[in-house]
Amino acid sequence: QGILERLDAGEIVIGDGGFVIALEKRGYVKAGPWTPEATVEHPEAVRQLHREFLRAGANVLQTFTFYASEDKLENRGNYVAEKISCQKVNEAACDIAREVANEGDALVAGGVSQTPSYLSGKDKTAVKAVFRQQLDVFMKKNVDFLIAEYFEHVEEAVWAVEVLKESGKPVAATMCIGPEGDMHGVSPGQCAVQLVKAGASIVGVNCHFDPEISLETVRLMKEGLQAAKLKAHLMSQPLAFHTPDCGKQGFIDLPEFPFGLEPRIVTRWDVQKYARKAYDLGIRFIGGCCGFEPYHIRAIAEELAPERGFLPEASEKHGSWGDNLSMHTKPWVRARARKEYWENLKPASGRPYCPSMSKPDGWGVTKGAKELMQQKEATTEQQLKELFQKKF
Amino acid sequence: QGILERLDAGEIVIGDGGFVIALEKRGYVKAGPWTPEATVEHPEAVRQLHREFLRAGANVLQTFTFYASEDKLENRGNYVAEKISCQKVNEAACDIAREVANEGDALVAGGVSQTPSYLSGKDKTAVKAVFRQQLDVFMKKNVDFLIAEYFEHVEEAVWAVEVLKESGKPVAATMCIGPEGDMHGVSPGQCAVQLVKAGASIVGVNCHFDPEISLETVRLMKEGLQAAKLKAHLMSQPLAFHTPDCGKQGFIDLPEFPFGLEPRIVTRWDVQKYARKAYDLGIRFIGGCCGFEPYHIRAIAEELAPERGFLPEASEKHGSWGDNLSMHTKPWVRARARKEYWENLKPASGRPYCPSMSKPDGWGVTKGAKELMQQKEATTEQQLKELFQKKF
Amino acid sequence: QGILERLDAGEIVIGDGGFVIALEKRGYVKAGPWTPEATVEHPEAVRQLHREFLRAGANVLQTFTFYASEDKLENRGNYVAEKISCQKVNEAACDIAREVANEGDALVAGGVSQTPSYLSGKDKTAVKAVFRQQLDVFMKKNVDFLIAEYFEHVEEAVWAVEVLKESGKPVAATMCIGPEGDMHGVSPGQCAVQLVKAGASIVGVNCHFDPEISLETVRLMKEGLQAAKLKAHLMSQPLAFHTPDCGKQGFIDLPEFPFGLEPRIVTRWDVQKYARKAYDLGIRFIGGCCGFEPYHIRAIAEELAPERGFLPEASEKHGSWGDNLSMHTKPWVRARARKEYWENLKPASGRPYCPSMSKPDGWGVTKGAKELMQQKEATTEQQLKELFQKKF
Amino acid sequence: QGILERLDAGEIVIGDGGFVIALEKRGYVKAGPWTPEATVEHPEAVRQLHREFLRAGANVLQTFTFYASEDKLENRGNYVAEKISCQKVNEAACDIAREVANEGDALVAGGVSQTPSYLSGKDKTAVKAVFRQQLDVFMKKNVDFLIAEYFEHVEEAVWAVEVLKESGKPVAATMCIGPEGDMHGVSPGQCAVQLVKAGASIVGVNCHFDPEISLETVRLMKEGLQAAKLKAHLMSQPLAFHTPDCGKQGFIDLPEFPFGLEPRIVTRWDVQKYARKAYDLGIRFIGGCCGFEPYHIRAIAEELAPERGFLPEASEKHGSWGDNLSMHTKPWVRARARKEYWENLKPASGRPYCPSMSKPDGWGVTKGAKELMQQKEATTEQQLKELFQKKF
Repeated sequence: QGILERLDAGEIVIGDGGFVIALEKRGYVKAGPWTPEATVEHPEAVRQLHREFLRAGANVLQTFTFYASEDKLENRGNYVAEKISCQKVNEAACDIAREVANEGDALVAGGVSQTPSYLSGKDKTAVKAVFRQQLDVFMKKNVDFLIAEYFEHVEEAVWAVEVLKESGKPVAATMCIGPEGDMHGVSPGQCAVQLVKAGASIVGVNCHFDPEISLETVRLMKEGLQAAKLKAHLMSQPLAFHTPDCGKQGFIDLPEFPFGLEPRIVTRWDVQKYARKAYDLGIRFIGGCCGFEPYHIRAIAEELAPERGFLPEASEKHGSWGDNLSMHTKPWVRARARKEYWENLKPASGRPYCPSMSKPDGWGVTKGAKELMQQKEATTEQQLKELFQKKF
Repeated sequence: QGILERLDAGEIVIGDGGFVIALEKRGYVKAGPWTPEATVEHPEAVRQLHREFLRAGANVLQTFTFYASEDKLENRGNYVAEKISCQKVNEAACDIAREVANEGDALVAGGVSQTPSYLSGKDKTAVKAVFRQQLDVFMKKNVDFLIAEYFEHVEEAVWAVEVLKESGKPVAATMCIGPEGDMHGVSPGQCAVQLVKAGASIVGVNCHFDPEISLETVRLMKEGLQAAKLKAHLMSQPLAFHTPDCGKQGFIDLPEFPFGLEPRIVTRWDVQKYARKAYDLGIRFIGGCCGFEPYHIRAIAEELAPERGFLPEASEKHGSWGDNLSMHTKPWVRARARKEYWENLKPASGRPYCPSMSKPDGWGVTKGAKELMQQKEATTEQQLKELFQKKF
Repeated sequence: QGILERLDAGEIVIGDGGFVIALEKRGYVKAGPWTPEATVEHPEAVRQLHREFLRAGANVLQTFTFYASEDKLENRGNYVAEKISCQKVNEAACDIAREVANEGDALVAGGVSQTPSYLSGKDKTAVKAVFRQQLDVFMKKNVDFLIAEYFEHVEEAVWAVEVLKESGKPVAATMCIGPEGDMHGVSPGQCAVQLVKAGASIVGVNCHFDPEISLETVRLMKEGLQAAKLKAHLMSQPLAFHTPDCGKQGFIDLPEFPFGLEPRIVTRWDVQKYARKAYDLGIRFIGGCCGFEPYHIRAIAEELAPERGFLPEASEKHGSWGDNLSMHTKPWVRARARKEYWENLKPASGRPYCPSMSKPDGWGVTKGAKELMQQKEATTEQQLKELFQKKF
Repeated sequence: QGILERLDAGEIVIGDGGFVIALEKRGYVKAGPWTPEATVEHPEAVRQLHREFLRAGANVLQTFTFYASEDKLENRGNYVAEKISCQKVNEAACDIAREVANEGDALVAGGVSQTPSYLSGKDKTAVKAVFRQQLDVFMKKNVDFLIAEYFEHVEEAVWAVEVLKESGKPVAATMCIGPEGDMHGVSPGQCAVQLVKAGASIVGVNCHFDPEISLETVRLMKEGLQAAKLKAHLMSQPLAFHTPDCGKQGFIDLPEFPFGLEPRIVTRWDVQKYARKAYDLGIRFIGGCCGFEPYHIRAIAEELAPERGFLPEASEKHGSWGDNLSMHTKPWVRARARKEYWENLKPASGRPYCPSMSKPDGWGVTKGAKELMQQKEATTEQQLKELFQKKF
């Protein structure tokens, strides 16, 4: 059954987690460029991570093609050990995802994301050509559906959806925005409306913000769609980091990004709360993005097991709400084998010299930058950067 | 070259990281029993983790045989999906470790750890028989050397070393103790002396405490050996969690153990500080235990690259001290591409409702329990448990 | 010159600080009832606190008549050592304030605050009679102007203003509300409009929230007045406690109220930031409420000394921005003798077991209570309490 | 009855709190010089603070003569508005203390503290002359006993005790040291022994460290005295600030000193725990130093009321353990009217951008400085400063 059949039937579809952060920690992705040449260089590592997400309950395996557009790979080419063609990276990603999907009951989704071409001011035709190049591979490899994800500008996301729709396959679209909307100030509600009008059957958010903020953003999208009398399925793939202190551009601007985020990592119990809230909000495609490890995805599947009627394979190695601690030799550890304990725990950081929040760097908190964007003096990130450096 | 040849020649030997915590998050180990049946059930997952540690710079791959003694596997047998024999688990662990070690330049170390037999009061002969059963496999599979690790009682650790020494192979021994010493009150210095006298060529600590506390414990061991005019190589494999608030029995007693430890995870920069301090203290076998992911091990290898003269393979995907951020489009992210930035960052937790420290549970902070132990009314954990439940 | 002459001429008028919290710590006010019988029992203590605020720069001394209405004093009568009449308490308060005001250049303001009569559902006539009783004393003692402060319901505040206006003296009115508005859901802007229409020449907020939240509330009041084309002077007297985690009813609902608020006390530097922001927002009557000690008021006067052209008397015992540390024997303490140091300091709590924020108790965060209030099922606090206890 | 009669009879004697910090906040003392010219300039302010401590339960009123030695007042003379003679300051302090002591049942103690003469390397004769000058006033004004307090060097403290003993009056001596001992490395136990041998009948610590650390220091003093078979009464007057992160020289070196200490202020409940622990340790002269406000002293008196059989006067305005909240209209505030609530509360800071601990500045954490002191290259603070500036 395809993604839309499942969602139309009211099924809960569980997404996978974050590849670039997980594979960076495993030694296969370079922070900074974040490009996915590992599909060619170290397919076994990518395959293993897919498999872990599958075991954890993921119903969708996204091809590891984040930042795998031709312009991005060229741009960051100097980081790649030996030059590997864009086509090869994308093809390998499709093959690996399909191989693992066949080990279980999962769909393969081909994914595109925002491009340097758009950010540097190239026109619609040029940007669409970049997406089309990746789409050609997805069609050749016959993925099950398509996702346009990690867009900061709804205009570019709409272009991506338009290209992906040419395939005839179902299209999902997620933006990496918070409640304040996209980088040009388009509200979440308006973003959702534009994406659905462009052909997306599923809309939502991914990355950049923590589960709570992301759900608030999807809520605003839902309101926008309702106001416009449009219908679409909802989707969320937030960070697995607590980011209550983010500015408009999300966790990139936090001083801890990307090498000091550890104290912000969410627990499995935080994820269970997220999954429940997402479900209550009407979201039925529930997954994660950066920071989501296999055990976080399993937590979604476990929280929603009553609704779905089954547990994921990896739950054979996990007791619900810590119940596997009930046989511990120490009585005070046994006392932790219950839901109330883990639900209410406020875990300490072990870091007496570290605060709870940071002040984000950058434009997100700079009055001047906000005004520049509002005044539309800068419409591309490149222009904004130049203006910013000139003025401030 | 064997482990002793390397250490005797003054080489820095890098250990691997923690298997049970990493594989629990990946979906292959059950928290609570923590047994390694994954070597039989899912060898590809164990193999991949070994490979990541190898790429990260580990010179030693420990067989994933933690808690793989016959008595432990039986004890927790109800958790294991289908009954898998102790011998099969240990053999598979040896095969996988050797297979990956051959992909690079690493030694294979067979490992034993503390047993339910000892904790429930069995005698020396019975306990030694348990170790000998695992040793037989290690000899058959011809591991390069042996490690007795994770002992809370030096008496049992000595018995383990005595058994392992029967093999003629080099033996390392680490205890999971802090500066207060073992559970019977034997000081770290005295523990080290007893272990060396029993035949260990390398002594140190693993697990239970954070890098800082662990190094302090090794320092006390070193002092003890010097006072006794004994020689041995030093080794440390601490937690990758900040635990300044631990009691005597370490992180098990923290309210966050084992499912809420995320905010305590150390950063790569914390590990670089640890590696430097360990080196300065004279430790030459430097690795990690629970919580150490491949990128943490890479951080040891990167910190000590000047002394060793080379970087590990995985550093092709990692810039030193964040230098790969120097090409970021945002100027404030580029500003993070330097050592001073990451060295001085005090990362926020993103958790305004969580404190910095917790009060440990349990005997570690219970006057009564301490006294019981000091009065030697209880000499086994079982007895202590019974007494504890009777009296308090 | 009267209060309005000063404000009309563009002067900055500095208010005084908090009496009940300061005198509770000094041993003269009982937390819980918070009544001001100290004016009769221990006039020297009240006099000394007035004097300290005067020295710190206060241009207005409020009579210590908070909660000194007949119905309140009766209500809490059991707490008062010997029965002291309402009239005596109010008269003594006026005498003491005038005596100290004459030591310098300060106005005396007679103050009334919310009454048990209103909260228990008495009608307009009955509530107004309570205010009129206090007003009679203020007229007899000829205070310079009048303040209606600490109202959670704009309806009662309007009644108070109407009574006070009968005197012909200038009237200021402050509510203890945040940006969400009063307890019946009237927005800050609407509250301001109603108060000005009732006759208040000065409007603003006092108590219940920290400086930042209070200024946001006054900003909303200002917007409301502008939209209604009404003119009034603005006033703010916030808490000297950081309360980013408050619910709608302010700091009362925080678990730390009233005996564990110490870690939230603002520094003098926090107050300087507040004074500057208040000034920039157009507020010209700037003071403090609970928690504001004399040195906090001095910080307002010091921050605005450039605009006012003079320092308060107590600044003879205070260097600007710590400059009196420049002669310290330790070089690192001397290094603290500068603005940048104190402006940027993020002071540690010294409390590793305490979090940064708390979850407020009570209705403020209870969905049911909010709905009850919105549905107007409960219009008095008493009714709400009863409904609350019945339903939840 | 005199101080020794009371202590010998087993009475608990309650000391007063901190003058310089309290009067700085009230506007009468300048941070930096911290000199007590307020006794002449504003006697009413000093009198009122004495009175508040008396009401709170203090049995001893210390003359406000801290840093009132001739050499100190001259040294900081430029800060004093008009030149006021040392003798006048000390005489006024005695008169005010006696006047308030007569309002109740309190003893007056004349106090001396460490001198610039000693710190700049003057000899024993010169330093003793400074103390003798203050003693002459104390004798003329006939104080009840004498306290030598706030000494960082036991050598100077011994000289002070020797001078004070010339009077024939009982002498108490407290040092501002922590468990590491005095600035020359003399242990707390040895300090106590030397002070008792010099003639002190009461020994202990004051200032520089929080209650917990101070009690640990007194415990070491007690051990030292027991080992030396000496007898003396014990005394503690710690800070009312949490300082778990202090270095050897105490809170002066914390980045928050002296203008950002607010989040560290202890609650009344913290003080009750302190009073109980102090009592259990055998301390019978229990008071406070910097940061102790009247309500903190009251907390000592309330905690020890069962042992003493009575409450202080100020308790008429304070319910035990918050019981005065039991009549609050809000049920969740009423729920705070009990001991368990306040005993277990971990108060939030309301400061999400502030950490729990700071790194102290200065020599306290500087290896070089410690070595210089140990090597006795520097024996005065002046020499150390010079060496420090030359070498580091």
